[in-house]
Amino acid sequence: MPLVALIPEPNAPVELREVPAPELEKNSALFNVEFSEVCGTDVYLQRGLLTGVPYPLVPGHVSVGRLSKIRGTLVDIEGREFREGDRVTFLDVHRTCHQCWYCLVAKATTRCPKRKVYGITYGLDDGLCGGWAEQIYLKPGTLCLRLDADAETFMAGGCALPTALHAIERADIAIGDTVLVLGSGPVGISGIILALMRGALKVFCIGAPAPRLEAASEAGADAVLNFEDHNLGERLEWVRERTGGRGADVTIEATGAPDAVVEAMRFTRDAGRVVVVGQYTDHGETSFNPHLDLNRKHLDVRGCWGSDFSHFHRAVQIVSDPLKSKAWASLKSRLARYSLAKANEALTAVAQGRVLKALIDPGQR
Amino acid sequence: MPLVALIPEPNAPVELREVPAPELEKNSALFNVEFSEVCGTDVYLQRGLLTGVPYPLVPGHVSVGRLSKIRGTLVDIEGREFREGDRVTFLDVHRTCHQCWYCLVAKATTRCPKRKVYGITYGLDDGLCGGWAEQIYLKPGTLCLRLDADAETFMAGGCALPTALHAIERADIAIGDTVLVLGSGPVGISGIILALMRGALKVFCIGAPAPRLEAASEAGADAVLNFEDHNLGERLEWVRERTGGRGADVTIEATGAPDAVVEAMRFTRDAGRVVVVGQYTDHGETSFNPHLDLNRKHLDVRGCWGSDFSHFHRAVQIVSDPLKSKAWASLKSRLARYSLAKANEALTAVAQGRVLKALIDPGQR
Amino acid sequence: MPLVALIPEPNAPVELREVPAPELEKNSALFNVEFSEVCGTDVYLQRGLLTGVPYPLVPGHVSVGRLSKIRGTLVDIEGREFREGDRVTFLDVHRTCHQCWYCLVAKATTRCPKRKVYGITYGLDDGLCGGWAEQIYLKPGTLCLRLDADAETFMAGGCALPTALHAIERADIAIGDTVLVLGSGPVGISGIILALMRGALKVFCIGAPAPRLEAASEAGADAVLNFEDHNLGERLEWVRERTGGRGADVTIEATGAPDAVVEAMRFTRDAGRVVVVGQYTDHGETSFNPHLDLNRKHLDVRGCWGSDFSHFHRAVQIVSDPLKSKAWASLKSRLARYSLAKANEALTAVAQGRVLKALIDPGQR
Amino acid sequence: MPLVALIPEPNAPVELREVPAPELEKNSALFNVEFSEVCGTDVYLQRGLLTGVPYPLVPGHVSVGRLSKIRGTLVDIEGREFREGDRVTFLDVHRTCHQCWYCLVAKATTRCPKRKVYGITYGLDDGLCGGWAEQIYLKPGTLCLRLDADAETFMAGGCALPTALHAIERADIAIGDTVLVLGSGPVGISGIILALMRGALKVFCIGAPAPRLEAASEAGADAVLNFEDHNLGERLEWVRERTGGRGADVTIEATGAPDAVVEAMRFTRDAGRVVVVGQYTDHGETSFNPHLDLNRKHLDVRGCWGSDFSHFHRAVQIVSDPLKSKAWASLKSRLARYSLAKANEALTAVAQGRVLKALIDPGQR
Repeated sequence: MPLVALIPEPNAPVELREVPAPELEKNSALFNVEFSEVCGTDVYLQRGLLTGVPYPLVPGHVSVGRLSKIRGTLVDIEGREFREGDRVTFLDVHRTCHQCWYCLVAKATTRCPKRKVYGITYGLDDGLCGGWAEQIYLKPGTLCLRLDADAETFMAGGCALPTALHAIERADIAIGDTVLVLGSGPVGISGIILALMRGALKVFCIGAPAPRLEAASEAGADAVLNFEDHNLGERLEWVRERTGGRGADVTIEATGAPDAVVEAMRFTRDAGRVVVVGQYTDHGETSFNPHLDLNRKHLDVRGCWGSDFSHFHRAVQIVSDPLKSKAWASLKSRLARYSLAKANEALTAVAQGRVLKALIDPGQR
Repeated sequence: MPLVALIPEPNAPVELREVPAPELEKNSALFNVEFSEVCGTDVYLQRGLLTGVPYPLVPGHVSVGRLSKIRGTLVDIEGREFREGDRVTFLDVHRTCHQCWYCLVAKATTRCPKRKVYGITYGLDDGLCGGWAEQIYLKPGTLCLRLDADAETFMAGGCALPTALHAIERADIAIGDTVLVLGSGPVGISGIILALMRGALKVFCIGAPAPRLEAASEAGADAVLNFEDHNLGERLEWVRERTGGRGADVTIEATGAPDAVVEAMRFTRDAGRVVVVGQYTDHGETSFNPHLDLNRKHLDVRGCWGSDFSHFHRAVQIVSDPLKSKAWASLKSRLARYSLAKANEALTAVAQGRVLKALIDPGQR
Repeated sequence: MPLVALIPEPNAPVELREVPAPELEKNSALFNVEFSEVCGTDVYLQRGLLTGVPYPLVPGHVSVGRLSKIRGTLVDIEGREFREGDRVTFLDVHRTCHQCWYCLVAKATTRCPKRKVYGITYGLDDGLCGGWAEQIYLKPGTLCLRLDADAETFMAGGCALPTALHAIERADIAIGDTVLVLGSGPVGISGIILALMRGALKVFCIGAPAPRLEAASEAGADAVLNFEDHNLGERLEWVRERTGGRGADVTIEATGAPDAVVEAMRFTRDAGRVVVVGQYTDHGETSFNPHLDLNRKHLDVRGCWGSDFSHFHRAVQIVSDPLKSKAWASLKSRLARYSLAKANEALTAVAQGRVLKALIDPGQR
Repeated sequence: MPLVALIPEPNAPVELREVPAPELEKNSALFNVEFSEVCGTDVYLQRGLLTGVPYPLVPGHVSVGRLSKIRGTLVDIEGREFREGDRVTFLDVHRTCHQCWYCLVAKATTRCPKRKVYGITYGLDDGLCGGWAEQIYLKPGTLCLRLDADAETFMAGGCALPTALHAIERADIAIGDTVLVLGSGPVGISGIILALMRGALKVFCIGAPAPRLEAASEAGADAVLNFEDHNLGERLEWVRERTGGRGADVTIEATGAPDAVVEAMRFTRDAGRVVVVGQYTDHGETSFNPHLDLNRKHLDVRGCWGSDFSHFHRAVQIVSDPLKSKAWASLKSRLARYSLAKANEALTAVAQGRVLKALIDPGQR
């Protein structure tokens, strides 16, 4: 009976539980978890801040491990069959339907109403569907990807990497652009690395706390500013000084704070682009001036929700490449590993920003 | 000595004045005004709501008339020389520098800090630079366009038409899309016509007052709703009923009211586009929810400032075409003509939305 | 036993045959054919010019009819269940896999190697999978669309309409553009109508024979030229005279003749766009000058293959709309109906361009 | 009297000549040449292969040097005034008119018919307008850029860098893409570096001769193939082996050989992009199959002509950045310097591909 760590209900602590091993349907598989992730979304889950979440729930949406059992056939996007023992990861999003208006007409598959997410919208009643567990049940249709990369390097990107890839795709960075990243959590850090990988000349980061800003610098940010030590006017001045007085060409908002969205608009030059990728739960309203902040600036403000297989695929490509993976490899020292039994501690560390990212390591006792 | 109607200072009534005839520099011209326009911007000018405006000022940025005198050479974009007596209009924006960072690197010429606008940022001290006058002095470098269209049909579009063309360009309408236009002033009405011209299947309009909504219907809106008679919840319901419960594919905000920007976000379907083209002066702040209104919706919100020569050129093409001009031709009955002496009445009529558009007709006594 | 008209092998005449009624799998349906289409692809099929086609084959990829029997559940993209008796059409492309590299990474679903097309790559061995038949078996996963439009208006667009919609989507037409359509077959004619629907100011067409050029004029082309009566120099001159000497902003190639692709490049202005949508089978090579025809012109040349559900969906929206469908409704007089027994005559008429489009009407005896 | 090296007429050897020092118009400057470039275009010029070129002509379109004399005011795009003694480079393209249809409506300024290019379409009769000279006369309106970079690093990119930047901009490379560069001359080499800078995962290069392929490897190409040692079938096989059997996502053609354009199409995966940037003079026709090479492939083929100020500006940004400039800095050893007197030798070395790039160094005796 595999062991899982689950959130029994909103605001309750994580509990360990043994659950029955699943019976495999045709073309499904069992996945032995090597690492799963603890991210900001998991903090929200524990606090009951996301809608449409079925409790009890085993969190952990991005994981790396091995296929321990396959029933039927499981193939990758090249049509190559997986075998038991293969090291893989899998797209946490399942059941994108490819049959609804959002999938087929709007081609906005991250807004497909049928999609389910392992560890978020699949609860325990749906089966072994979260990564804080010894095993995950990969239902038929789950999209697996072979992973040759170092497991911890992959997890240093984790779910933040495809999210940031989507944001960068939406950001239309040109070679030579100046990019400002608001937020120094995992999405912000991957955003910094990817903005540079896209040809940005300078990347700046405003965030907190100090250790995360160190990580931002290490990731390649040309300058960082601690949000907590400077008021809005100072922050604006700091950005302008570094951007010819105009503001950044592109700002990536990855903070979680509603006000940061408006600041992103103010920190960006006229006719620039703002990508909003940090507002994954409802933290309330904020106020802005449509004339000054948007219309007269001729600004583009782009919400960016979720990610699709292409982002996950590119994330795996990047972390599997000796050169391109370097920035994430160097973040490995900032990961903290926790056993299933210490999942509550992991959540606390993430909530406080004490670690860049916490990993659940079910093999650890 | 040509007669002009000018705003001596903010909040003062318009006055008539005779001013000396200009001396023509090389490659400049004198333009006899047939009609000039009274638009919402002129109301703002009179109330002192725009920044960077030099008073005293002769308003009137879009005009139609004849070249009465040319000194040197004046050519159109095809290189064909203009002759005295030609019926023309001209791009109100002058001195886009094509030498600064905004012009050459960002390629955002409507944000060029050097640009001057006849009737708005050129004041009386700059010469005969507004259309509420018997004559306009076309400085060297002013871009003129031959106008074969009926003068009033052209003015039924007026400055709103290039503005709306720019907004429609930013809106990425696909054939079959549902478009919602907020605002039933001149920009909104031209937006309705252009959205249909772009292949929208259905166009809806929320605006006020009733006569302008009639114009919206006449312009092709499938349904209109009076903003003043329905609260936000009702308006949202009205939109959803007409859009499969999802909201419009594209919303064009053309109202002037800050709250309308947020409503536009709420009235638009996930992964849709909002173009903000109605916030031409500072009417204060508004508040929104970045999670619900932007990020989770995967929404694009696009400010749209000013217009450039391409929009003006296309506006002239459209109103000169027998078929494409029809919708504006049918709006001619909604124009009201005023003599220079009655410019104050014209402003009042526009401010109150009593007419769709007021024209200054300097030939009228 | 439903009657079908089938091509037994390449270059053999079409034969009538009775085939056993299919057994319905779960979530499949039986479709009673009202009309099916005879298009250029069917001529290629009969001549054995397409690769990957399994003979014997029942042609007919776009059809309209009624669901006579449903086993299990069949829903539209809004999630509304279909009922027996509903008038529908269906996307001829089946089994786009949404699991391969082309579907998920390149997002080029029309290049998915798994896709099958009713009436083209599904042969008789795959079941009742072509429209030249009394019935079609709609396999599970077939995407159906409710059709409220007049059946013949829909068929006047037929398979050419989604094809042309895809081409127009790739063409990036701006309001005011001049569009040149090469070819006056069904794709060309729908291309003319759609270019105008997209805001093109002028649309020109070069094609043949005369009756199809009449149809082009009726569809809205401002001027047409008979390809057979003018040599290349004359055709080029004809285009330049109508485009300020520069060439068209956009050229849609919809001819089937390799040389037309190069002519399209020459007929287009510098920095314009050429969409190649007429080369659906291999008619050999053609020769061009990469310096003069492409690089110096800063030209975009865009191949356009197949169509996806979004194009089909929009096609149905358009022909169901009272205003937008008018151009196709007026083409109905140019349709010729044939019974199943007269399918060979239908093919000949299409091959010779004697009719704009031939319909197979299985109800006709 | 400044010394220049000039081509007296097509196919004649370069000659030295002393010419009178220019008189400076208002807002013009004199530029002391530090280095000017010898590129493939200069070889074409000497052979009379370009149209619209006025002989006698001083070649050399991209140069670096110092402003030795300024009459009036010269400002950069930030509005900062230049001073005598400043190290600068300047955009070789002059007189883009910003008043014609191509500039203002098509927004395709590299196709402006009024533009003149120093060292190419400005001949000796136009003044001291080429870089193979001790001095260049910078006419009013010439766009200068401050250059803090190492002069030779800048010249290692030279005119190829903005050209390649334009091509990369047109290529729409996504992070993780595989890019194939055809040609290992300066444009190809800069294309390799920039493709990587844009996030390409793998870049391959097919070119010749061997020393240039070494440069390609040094610049970051993952694998290179000598064009001369492998036939088309082998080259195709080589590409497919490295691209999952599909072909490259993006191919940049930078060869000068017409056949390479068709090969580029064949080496690219379905729904990929080909940028044609190597066909700067007329080397005749080539032949392709529109069905197999373009339409069925759903391919985008994009001609790319010239470059504009934005590309030049970004080129200067890149070579001025300590990290981003590294790849070009490491190419410095592959530059060969020639005195004005040895310009003919420089041309021969470039024509034979013996050097990556030759520089004219007027200070060398």
